Amino acid sequence: MHTRGYAAQAADTPLAPFTFARRALGERDVQVAIDFCGICHSDIHFARNEWGFTAYPCVPGHEIIGRVVATGPSVSRLAAGQRVGVGCFVNSCRVCSRCQRGQENYCEAGVTMTYGSMEADGVTPTLGGYATQIVVDDHFVFTLPDGLDPAASAPLLCAGITTYTPLRDAGITKGSRVAIMGLGGLGHMGVKLAASFGAEVTVLSRSPEKEADARKLGAHEFVLTSRAGALEALAGRYDGILDTISAKHDLTAAVNCLKPGGTLMLVGAAAEPLEFNALPLLFGGRRINGSLVGGIPDTQALLDHCGKHGITSDIELITPDQINHAYERTLKGDVKYRFVIDCSKF
Amino acid sequence: MHTRGYAAQAADTPLAPFTFARRALGERDVQVAIDFCGICHSDIHFARNEWGFTAYPCVPGHEIIGRVVATGPSVSRLAAGQRVGVGCFVNSCRVCSRCQRGQENYCEAGVTMTYGSMEADGVTPTLGGYATQIVVDDHFVFTLPDGLDPAASAPLLCAGITTYTPLRDAGITKGSRVAIMGLGGLGHMGVKLAASFGAEVTVLSRSPEKEADARKLGAHEFVLTSRAGALEALAGRYDGILDTISAKHDLTAAVNCLKPGGTLMLVGAAAEPLEFNALPLLFGGRRINGSLVGGIPDTQALLDHCGKHGITSDIELITPDQINHAYERTLKGDVKYRFVIDCSKF
Repeated sequence: MHTRGYAAQAADTPLAPFTFARRALGERDVQVAIDFCGICHSDIHFARNEWGFTAYPCVPGHEIIGRVVATGPSVSRLAAGQRVGVGCFVNSCRVCSRCQRGQENYCEAGVTMTYGSMEADGVTPTLGGYATQIVVDDHFVFTLPDGLDPAASAPLLCAGITTYTPLRDAGITKGSRVAIMGLGGLGHMGVKLAASFGAEVTVLSRSPEKEADARKLGAHEFVLTSRAGALEALAGRYDGILDTISAKHDLTAAVNCLKPGGTLMLVGAAAEPLEFNALPLLFGGRRINGSLVGGIPDTQALLDHCGKHGITSDIELITPDQINHAYERTLKGDVKYRFVIDCSKF
Repeated sequence: MHTRGYAAQAADTPLAPFTFARRALGERDVQVAIDFCGICHSDIHFARNEWGFTAYPCVPGHEIIGRVVATGPSVSRLAAGQRVGVGCFVNSCRVCSRCQRGQENYCEAGVTMTYGSMEADGVTPTLGGYATQIVVDDHFVFTLPDGLDPAASAPLLCAGITTYTPLRDAGITKGSRVAIMGLGGLGHMGVKLAASFGAEVTVLSRSPEKEADARKLGAHEFVLTSRAGALEALAGRYDGILDTISAKHDLTAAVNCLKPGGTLMLVGAAAEPLEFNALPLLFGGRRINGSLVGGIPDTQALLDHCGKHGITSDIELITPDQINHAYERTLKGDVKYRFVIDCSKF
């Protein structure tokens, strides 16, 4: 079926209108009319081939909210009209130990990304959510709880799950003390989610102007880390620190702020190597955990959790013709806190 | 009570005979006649004040095997003549969350090290196991299973537990694939213990001459990492990698050899910062876990495990007058795999 969208045709040209075909509805497929799609920093890396493996035309977008239009004959749990989401992945092997454990994001055979991968046929590139329609295997379609604003829910599919899973895996719960480093698209979801778990949340930031927002998002404390001695004063304080900073930075000071046994959750993908001193890691039995998005059961659990607690992302809603400008603003960190495209305007 | 031993009187003088007093036997104390004490690399750092906080005279030694001589009135589980061990710690707060969980090694109030700390009185320095006697709180005394060679069991108290705990914490068990980096005092225990858990063990080393020993110790495979492309060929292979290297090294290649969700267990205390690239950590949901020795219940569990499986350290037994020479050889890595002092000769 034909769908309208926006695509990059080359690494150095802006995204522009693009019409393309989705696959015909298969046995286990769900056809989704896309209402909203968030803009993730990865979209920009990918559209511009900054990771070196982009095939063109490239339709980015993996924070998708829409409505079911049609379902294949074996799909019984979804019905036309139902509000659904699609995230970063649209297929995986289903049989490896990771898939069996609901960690499709770490599929040993390699997960199929919503854009920038190949379909199961091995030759058709996957195209993402900057579009009016998508066809996705039922297993990778989530239901959106009633009562959540659909546009503001789109970023839950990437920014939300990317912070939810490491916080849950690190055992952050009621009474935990957790710090968030970096208050952007990921960090602002980290604050909201950690607070919703009942944790005591601190935002660590070099920017004093972020304090008001941090508190509005649910942080109980704000520490200006550019003040001399600020991090030293927090030694041994946190059960977990969610590090969303994607630039090079020394991890030692953060590790040192963890309680014994505490976890530094690394979700920012710095291009340059990261450094840390081994001693505080050893002497406190501390951990540095990498985490990438989250599995399918976790993503549905996140959406259900957000429905229960009324959590969505703070967004700026844009029309498709604003995508390229939004990319520039995202690169400057000039967004509170996520751009979402109104896909009815494609 | 008076005890004979060896002490460093200054950072730059060799260890020499030294006679000193142990505290009188208290209510919950155990007096131990020391038979054997292992030489740990930390002993050297400490005797030479390389960490900057050594008080002199300094009696090192925290791999202690001996026999009970006397017990305080509240000690019922031990009797004179019983073979026991004392490890790296002789006291902790007992009430913090870590002590309550049997992780005295991470006591939030600071654990009392067997040497180089202060006794509970706050003014008397603790003196270690290069001596004929020691008086230790019952909670920090382990029973040695019958059938283990007492001299070769001494290094279990530090080298053994330092490798046992992270392997257990990382879930290494029957059928796991585990790699050991660095085949010294720690690494050789790591090979024996991982193999005894039923894991498939690989030694990763830059030294081809270590292959024969690696296999003798129980490794199923040996990979010469100095060969170009050797580590790249192991991408995604191991559930866990025990990294015992104490010199600066890039962790990226090792992290990349882990399966998704795998753990790099860091037990070597490199003085310079360690580096890694964030992407393989994120993309595989991998972990870097610091680990320092182990708690009291884990240490007893290790000794019991070793008793059941007939595991001890490979040692070179020396007399006290050979301690300074043994230090020089340890610094050169010229020991297979641990020096143990015959303390009956003090």
